[in-house]
Amino acid sequence: MNPARTTPARSAGIPARTPVKTVGVGLLGRGTVGSAFVDEFNATADSIAESLGKRPVISGILRRSEGDFEQILRDSDVVVELMGGLDPARGYVEKALNAGCDVVTANKQLVAHYGEDLARIAGERDVHFRYEAAIAGAVPITPVLKGNLLVTHIDRVMGIVNGTTNFILEEMAKTQSTFEDALAQAQKLGYAEPDPTEDINGKDAAAKMAILARLAFGSSVKFEDVDYWGIESIDPDDLLYAKEFSLSLKLLGIAERQEDSLSVRVFPCFVSDKHPLASVHGPFNAVTIDAPAIELITMSGPGAGARATASIVLNDVVAAVARMPQADYFAVTESLAIDNSGQRSCFYIHLIVADEPGVLANVAEVLAKHDISVESAVQRGLGDQARLMLVTHECDEDGFWEALLDLSKLRVTRSEPRAIRVREQA
Amino acid sequence: MNPARTTPARSAGIPARTPVKTVGVGLLGRGTVGSAFVDEFNATADSIAESLGKRPVISGILRRSEGDFEQILRDSDVVVELMGGLDPARGYVEKALNAGCDVVTANKQLVAHYGEDLARIAGERDVHFRYEAAIAGAVPITPVLKGNLLVTHIDRVMGIVNGTTNFILEEMAKTQSTFEDALAQAQKLGYAEPDPTEDINGKDAAAKMAILARLAFGSSVKFEDVDYWGIESIDPDDLLYAKEFSLSLKLLGIAERQEDSLSVRVFPCFVSDKHPLASVHGPFNAVTIDAPAIELITMSGPGAGARATASIVLNDVVAAVARMPQADYFAVTESLAIDNSGQRSCFYIHLIVADEPGVLANVAEVLAKHDISVESAVQRGLGDQARLMLVTHECDEDGFWEALLDLSKLRVTRSEPRAIRVREQA
Repeated sequence: MNPARTTPARSAGIPARTPVKTVGVGLLGRGTVGSAFVDEFNATADSIAESLGKRPVISGILRRSEGDFEQILRDSDVVVELMGGLDPARGYVEKALNAGCDVVTANKQLVAHYGEDLARIAGERDVHFRYEAAIAGAVPITPVLKGNLLVTHIDRVMGIVNGTTNFILEEMAKTQSTFEDALAQAQKLGYAEPDPTEDINGKDAAAKMAILARLAFGSSVKFEDVDYWGIESIDPDDLLYAKEFSLSLKLLGIAERQEDSLSVRVFPCFVSDKHPLASVHGPFNAVTIDAPAIELITMSGPGAGARATASIVLNDVVAAVARMPQADYFAVTESLAIDNSGQRSCFYIHLIVADEPGVLANVAEVLAKHDISVESAVQRGLGDQARLMLVTHECDEDGFWEALLDLSKLRVTRSEPRAIRVREQA
Repeated sequence: MNPARTTPARSAGIPARTPVKTVGVGLLGRGTVGSAFVDEFNATADSIAESLGKRPVISGILRRSEGDFEQILRDSDVVVELMGGLDPARGYVEKALNAGCDVVTANKQLVAHYGEDLARIAGERDVHFRYEAAIAGAVPITPVLKGNLLVTHIDRVMGIVNGTTNFILEEMAKTQSTFEDALAQAQKLGYAEPDPTEDINGKDAAAKMAILARLAFGSSVKFEDVDYWGIESIDPDDLLYAKEFSLSLKLLGIAERQEDSLSVRVFPCFVSDKHPLASVHGPFNAVTIDAPAIELITMSGPGAGARATASIVLNDVVAAVARMPQADYFAVTESLAIDNSGQRSCFYIHLIVADEPGVLANVAEVLAKHDISVESAVQRGLGDQARLMLVTHECDEDGFWEALLDLSKLRVTRSEPRAIRVREQA
């Protein structure tokens, strides 16, 4: 880190009044978000300088083909990492922290995998390591968890933390398009990256939930701790049929306190119209925080978008320069084991069955054997077959998967049963 | 403020390990929220002590009939004001700040009327003056505006900041009950105070909007600057008729940046089903923040309730003791004049008219004369009269009220026209 430098204020045309200290901001990566960051930076530099009494200046930009990391390190007080991916981002961030620079990143995989190590280095070096844009886009997580809910005992955080999948699922439900067509539409509108693998298989959401769970519960959560499922194999028909139960499909992340452990999971899940996350549309993200003392807080905002991300990153830069307390600074460290077993859920089931008397009784009997009771059922004739859709009451998940296997073996069953979790309440 | 004191840790039965510093917390007022505060305080004292390295202890309680303010002042580092009202709360808070105590309050009228003075005194004395619970209940305002959106240019904050009226309006719409019956129901459920005047006439919401606008725009906003209307004269029939337009009624507070001024107003307003505040139910509060860089952020949470309020107050106490930066600390002070004139809005109109040909044409002509165009109209026969309900496109408000007067004078008009603002978009 450079010693504080001074520079004459504003442009050369205006007589300088007081020399203003500058703060060097080095940028690693200049893709879409990086470019938006430079734009936001330039647009707000004057008001930031006025607030901080220090003028941030871009001290260097490292692109794939140009730029010198060592030079950026020498000239920067804050390093902004917008390269994405684990390597070489991890090495650069480590070096920057060790050199005494504050680091701001929007890289969720980096934070989910190595966040604890990097935060530890930052702590030892007494510099900031900030990553608000890596959690849920512009949804304000850290200031709420570490501000308003500083001493609040939290039971559960739940969220839609991936805008790409939220857009795709809504598009499929609205237009009855296939997964592939909805994905193509998302890419066309800029809501999905050219390679959307980590969005649609749930890996992106899993990384964010690891970070979110760590912040909410002050306990160590690693990426590997999160069980996750994606939306690749969702049948658009199920989105249509589920409307009869007033259900819409979301990719949910849930981190929940159990007796003395924590479960952190990501899966596609139907939510009822009354659910606070049901009204989160398009590429928006939202997070609910469930705590006995404050009931339920829900926050939503754009989940992606270069400008929103850049704006949150810039805010972290200012917070670092202003020495606002860091998120982990005040963490009440609890040691909760991660345990994703023994979960309970309601389920939606889709079955094609022979259209003959007693079929529903057969199906209900199999479910009952596994202690699963039916909340509602809809049957639709299809000639000599029938489509049977059920929503169960809450049941043991392990038992449910066994029951589903038994259903597939029934004499009257004509299709592989499909099942999706359902959540009525927050 | 007392010099730091030390006390042996925990109860006498357990051998003290390290003596822990204590922090004296004096409580002014012990009504519902005060009692809930003491409960929350006792329930979380251990974990707070562990986080802070200092143990907060209740140093005294001032009730109407007992307690000694001077003694509380001597023994307290933080004074918590939960009396409500302007007097004697204002005097106590001033004295406490001047004596070097941090002050935390949930008193919105106090903050809206004298907040700037009190914050100035706090600044001079280098103590904290915190009032998160005075803004929108448990909805996290300050940490978001002064955390995530520290340097974000904000165009508009809009909110449902009074839970009592939100409950009453929803109850009226759901059960077709009168205003009086819905209010009685709210009181029965503890969502309305025995004297609900300031809730239902909009004064409570106006105070909160003054505080919210000051935080969002970093500009001076006083209670007197806010134009407000209440919900006392809402006709339950209009809530029913408006369902035909998919509209539900909310008491909205809106603070909005114009060219170089600010408007801050509170009024009952229909919102369409698509509006992000339409899904805020019962006694919940919600706030939307509109900023070009981050599009729209929406946050909701319980708006009232003793425990939620107590929990937010306690959080402010901890934030003060931990010396977390204060909200006003970083305010970019802009000087925006308050100007509530020249507003534009859409309107719902209810009219009873003679059931004869050409009536809708008459009405539309009057509106057109004032530059108001009709978005949708529904007419229902009532024997020899008809009920006419209209929703207009956005128009100049002053012109609208003139048009309404003209409508009342039409030959075919059989009732005093009723009008309520409408908002489709965030």
